Amino acid sequence: MSGIAIHKVTTAHPGDVSALKTLPESTKPDDLLAVIGKTEGNGCVNDFTRMLSSTVWDPHLEASGGISVFSGGTEGVLSPHVSLVVKEDDYLKDDGSKMYNEGLVAKVGGTRDFEPWEMGTAIQARVTADTIKKLIAEVEVEADDVHMVLVKCPLLTTAKVVASAKECVTTDTYKSMGYSRLATAVGIALALGEVTEDGIDDALESYGQRGWSSRASCSSGAELENCHIVVLASSKKASNPYRAVHGYMADAIDLKVLLELTSKIPDGAERVQIFVKAEPSTDGVVRGKRHTMMTDSDIQGTRHARAAVGGLVAGVWGETDVYVSGGAEGQGPMGGGSVCVVYKV
Amino acid sequence: MSGIAIHKVTTAHPGDVSALKTLPESTKPDDLLAVIGKTEGNGCVNDFTRMLSSTVWDPHLEASGGISVFSGGTEGVLSPHVSLVVKEDDYLKDDGSKMYNEGLVAKVGGTRDFEPWEMGTAIQARVTADTIKKLIAEVEVEADDVHMVLVKCPLLTTAKVVASAKECVTTDTYKSMGYSRLATAVGIALALGEVTEDGIDDALESYGQRGWSSRASCSSGAELENCHIVVLASSKKASNPYRAVHGYMADAIDLKVLLELTSKIPDGAERVQIFVKAEPSTDGVVRGKRHTMMTDSDIQGTRHARAAVGGLVAGVWGETDVYVSGGAEGQGPMGGGSVCVVYKV
Amino acid sequence: MSGIAIHKVTTAHPGDVSALKTLPESTKPDDLLAVIGKTEGNGCVNDFTRMLSSTVWDPHLEASGGISVFSGGTEGVLSPHVSLVVKEDDYLKDDGSKMYNEGLVAKVGGTRDFEPWEMGTAIQARVTADTIKKLIAEVEVEADDVHMVLVKCPLLTTAKVVASAKECVTTDTYKSMGYSRLATAVGIALALGEVTEDGIDDALESYGQRGWSSRASCSSGAELENCHIVVLASSKKASNPYRAVHGYMADAIDLKVLLELTSKIPDGAERVQIFVKAEPSTDGVVRGKRHTMMTDSDIQGTRHARAAVGGLVAGVWGETDVYVSGGAEGQGPMGGGSVCVVYKV
Amino acid sequence: MSGIAIHKVTTAHPGDVSALKTLPESTKPDDLLAVIGKTEGNGCVNDFTRMLSSTVWDPHLEASGGISVFSGGTEGVLSPHVSLVVKEDDYLKDDGSKMYNEGLVAKVGGTRDFEPWEMGTAIQARVTADTIKKLIAEVEVEADDVHMVLVKCPLLTTAKVVASAKECVTTDTYKSMGYSRLATAVGIALALGEVTEDGIDDALESYGQRGWSSRASCSSGAELENCHIVVLASSKKASNPYRAVHGYMADAIDLKVLLELTSKIPDGAERVQIFVKAEPSTDGVVRGKRHTMMTDSDIQGTRHARAAVGGLVAGVWGETDVYVSGGAEGQGPMGGGSVCVVYKV
Repeated sequence: MSGIAIHKVTTAHPGDVSALKTLPESTKPDDLLAVIGKTEGNGCVNDFTRMLSSTVWDPHLEASGGISVFSGGTEGVLSPHVSLVVKEDDYLKDDGSKMYNEGLVAKVGGTRDFEPWEMGTAIQARVTADTIKKLIAEVEVEADDVHMVLVKCPLLTTAKVVASAKECVTTDTYKSMGYSRLATAVGIALALGEVTEDGIDDALESYGQRGWSSRASCSSGAELENCHIVVLASSKKASNPYRAVHGYMADAIDLKVLLELTSKIPDGAERVQIFVKAEPSTDGVVRGKRHTMMTDSDIQGTRHARAAVGGLVAGVWGETDVYVSGGAEGQGPMGGGSVCVVYKV
Repeated sequence: MSGIAIHKVTTAHPGDVSALKTLPESTKPDDLLAVIGKTEGNGCVNDFTRMLSSTVWDPHLEASGGISVFSGGTEGVLSPHVSLVVKEDDYLKDDGSKMYNEGLVAKVGGTRDFEPWEMGTAIQARVTADTIKKLIAEVEVEADDVHMVLVKCPLLTTAKVVASAKECVTTDTYKSMGYSRLATAVGIALALGEVTEDGIDDALESYGQRGWSSRASCSSGAELENCHIVVLASSKKASNPYRAVHGYMADAIDLKVLLELTSKIPDGAERVQIFVKAEPSTDGVVRGKRHTMMTDSDIQGTRHARAAVGGLVAGVWGETDVYVSGGAEGQGPMGGGSVCVVYKV
Repeated sequence: MSGIAIHKVTTAHPGDVSALKTLPESTKPDDLLAVIGKTEGNGCVNDFTRMLSSTVWDPHLEASGGISVFSGGTEGVLSPHVSLVVKEDDYLKDDGSKMYNEGLVAKVGGTRDFEPWEMGTAIQARVTADTIKKLIAEVEVEADDVHMVLVKCPLLTTAKVVASAKECVTTDTYKSMGYSRLATAVGIALALGEVTEDGIDDALESYGQRGWSSRASCSSGAELENCHIVVLASSKKASNPYRAVHGYMADAIDLKVLLELTSKIPDGAERVQIFVKAEPSTDGVVRGKRHTMMTDSDIQGTRHARAAVGGLVAGVWGETDVYVSGGAEGQGPMGGGSVCVVYKV
Repeated sequence: MSGIAIHKVTTAHPGDVSALKTLPESTKPDDLLAVIGKTEGNGCVNDFTRMLSSTVWDPHLEASGGISVFSGGTEGVLSPHVSLVVKEDDYLKDDGSKMYNEGLVAKVGGTRDFEPWEMGTAIQARVTADTIKKLIAEVEVEADDVHMVLVKCPLLTTAKVVASAKECVTTDTYKSMGYSRLATAVGIALALGEVTEDGIDDALESYGQRGWSSRASCSSGAELENCHIVVLASSKKASNPYRAVHGYMADAIDLKVLLELTSKIPDGAERVQIFVKAEPSTDGVVRGKRHTMMTDSDIQGTRHARAAVGGLVAGVWGETDVYVSGGAEGQGPMGGGSVCVVYKV
């Protein structure tokens, strides 16, 4: 089975792997499936905190063939942390029967490396979709059972653009992050049946406005050339106390949906983690009023969005080590973003 | 009487005075008492958006002897805007009797200019307190009737430090902003009876931890050498539909108090504006979890705090042109900040 | 005649017009032709120091129909200042004959306002070229006599992009600055005969690599919708002690050309001002070695370039109030930039 | 003997150790004495590129007991690179006699870890001086033979300040970098006889204005708790072709001294590396004209200084992978900085 547990631990700095010591003693070296972290860099092109975290964590993921997904940027109140996704056996009663009749399951994997000129295109979307479909099949769930597909995808650096055999989708390194997230999100939507094969080009051309998934969470970085993928789903075949619900913020101040989703956590259940995507709306307004996130040449728009949405999410969640990631192209409606809430009954 | 109305209008840029055209036709040139705005600069030492706004607005305040208070920094979702405080006659019934038996009143004024070496010291606190007491007396209310004392205070530039006759409280221009806000807040607390004359030094030395006011809202800038002061209070002698409640956020994610204060707005009443102070907690944590606002050398801590608290406040208020100002030294408990909610019945 | 004098004065802040007081007493209100300044903003989209300077200086330019050109960004050692270009009568001997048989002349003017969708296109180039040709004709010199055409050109904000009737050249506000400078530079090259009418599209498509002018100096800003133009030339018809030489830096560390150009200043002559354009090379290297100016998501590339080239130019010039402006698309070879040296014999 | 060679190699990113492959085949694992690099972070408190570089390089320094010194910040044209200092046997003629009658030698070492409250104080200065004196003795040269003492020193983070048993020299994490560099520089000056034991306090109190060394090059970082030290000196006992000269820039635009020092490199000799310290002058002016490096709340002053001085040094040196490090407290006169030129005859 692919049953899992999720352990969230704050970190002292991006090179800190002391979270490993907090795992239950029974955890075996090949149980660590994924490390999903927030690091304190700028979350943009030259954010090497992600590379530092990958460098120190990846050796611990070798045994399991697991992956790391580090999302840079803990602006505002956000607290750097890691969520360790570990394999966990089904919870059984003394008589050997299942303790729960459902549970959370996960599968991780990676696509092939992408050429610079493939990044941000339909090629990236299709290759990513194929890998996700395979992972969904392997974990034996349906697309509708999936709560979140979390992906770390590559970006373009000046060196890659210059070296590329064909023309790239953009020469602007910061913008390449958005195109890569978009293509990945469209790939997720394709794998989950939310966009059809015919709709890919339109989804890409409309920058995700006509074709998006509320279960996509994509983050781009210079520290990899392929896509790292985590599929999180509910399964009736598993038996564990982890549960999830998902939805999306309609805009960057959508307190209502956050309160609704968190209200679904039963009394007495333990909050595990909330995963949220955030972005500056490209029309320059939030509920009709001008924002300055895209005309600020000192602070990138994704940093602004993470800080603001992070403040709102932390206020609702009651703690600051929440996963809020910037750049929600195709991951929820324009200006909003996907939300996934994980709890433990 | 000193009865007022408050008109909030978004701005297209810091040089935009078109809000003037939105005032009721009956407004006379000397009715404009104060312009309280958020501008889209960095809110720090070299934020010249405040100077630009002062330059274009101050001519419109000359007739009334009014003042401008521009707080820089609309990080995240925050929307640049101005709140125009205008004198308004008592609302009367047809028979000439008062339509309401209370109302919001305001008085504005300024202290003398401060020498560089006085900024951030007990001298600034005392001089500011004296002016506030005078304004409170003039507006014929008690200290307990005051909801907010909003102040724009000066800061130190390198040029001022170098030219100063005596040693300044700091040579760091960014830090001088905090010291100036602190001394001002202690002055407000003194005027409102929340700190005694004997407690001034302790309040300053403890950086506002032992001596603060939940009704203080201070913002510093390079565009002035004295303190610009707005006193906002409830008065039984006035007759207008404006009302206010105040309180404070205990930390930067205090959603609870924001929901409590806004729940005091009666059904059917119109939300006018919410004024909130925000700051990075100096102990480096929010509810026990590390934040990175004070170790980020790319983005100043007050920018982080404005963005995060701005996101939370905008979520609660339902619109983004809220007044969230950074640097809450002595203006609420450490890491939190003062809150004032204005509405219209 | 259009003979001029140039007076360079440092400023205390972007709202400082005290330089006016340093002009010779004989200067009349309509003598001030142009104010060419460096202000201490970020030099990018949300640099409102330029708007502040325009706001305070433009009233002083009304009498002459003069123009202001404020270039934001005094990174590194650069010192904020203004160069006041004033009309000056021919220098005559006691017998009424000319004291010099040549001199520096200038003419200023503006194009019509541009629509958002015209910015950065061949339309902007052609309209700008037409105005420049007219100014050259009016000042009675040949294209070869021109040392520098200095232009302040507009940019795209999110609001303009959203409101545009047709598709704009980019939706990225920071990138729009480069496209606007490029189109302007191509217009200058066209007016000076360095690019042919047929070559405009190629010059634009190659981002100025195939079609540029070493006498172009363009700076973009949100504070205007048209192009403000200053043409600076030598004229045998004038009689004044001002002289100029021009050339271009081949890359961002071209010390050699700076030493060569300054060595042309005769012994005993007075240095007046040096005007230099700077940019990050788009191939990501300087003399074969990687730079990080275009992968830095915290500091924009033009800021990096101004700081570095500003340090070099100030070292050569021996003072820090030099005019170094960022973004040299079409204003010199890729990665380099135009240079104009003005001195007084 | 302690004879050395220096190999300078550009890096593709802060995690890049491919420079190792460029070393001569004869190099043994314990020959690598020091890695002195420039990384592309912000060079300030939260610059984790230094930690990433340390993490990947330190395993290669274990065999030799060598050290790494990474200085963050490649603003402007500066190119990220490493200078590998490797032990090299004396160059001998075929008859076994020395080929040269002098050469460059180096010794590396570290102090004990410092407590938070010791950082920036006379304790740090004295402990550092003691270690340097020991290294000078071990390498068998006199203080006058030393060309440069290059040190990586610690800084204060919010966590360290909060945890400190005694009061720290500052609570401002960015400022702690300057205090640590200052104390280290004073320690170097003490070890080299440029400051007496009695002069330490005055040197510290005057922020290095009364007590400094033109041979000190200090850089602070969060990635270590002690001082990493490299002593570079000329020795008559060594036989190798490496030579060095040193001096100091009197201010940030001191082109003259750079031309003088580089003119000492004989014709035909190979330029190896130039090491320069840079800083914003604390009086706010360069040659009497205002700079904005210390009133810019978006970009830290050391970043400005590195960019500007880096542009000048790269112009003189003719390549961009020069070592320019920010924050020159006590490392040259106020506003200037130490310079060390290494070449190979």
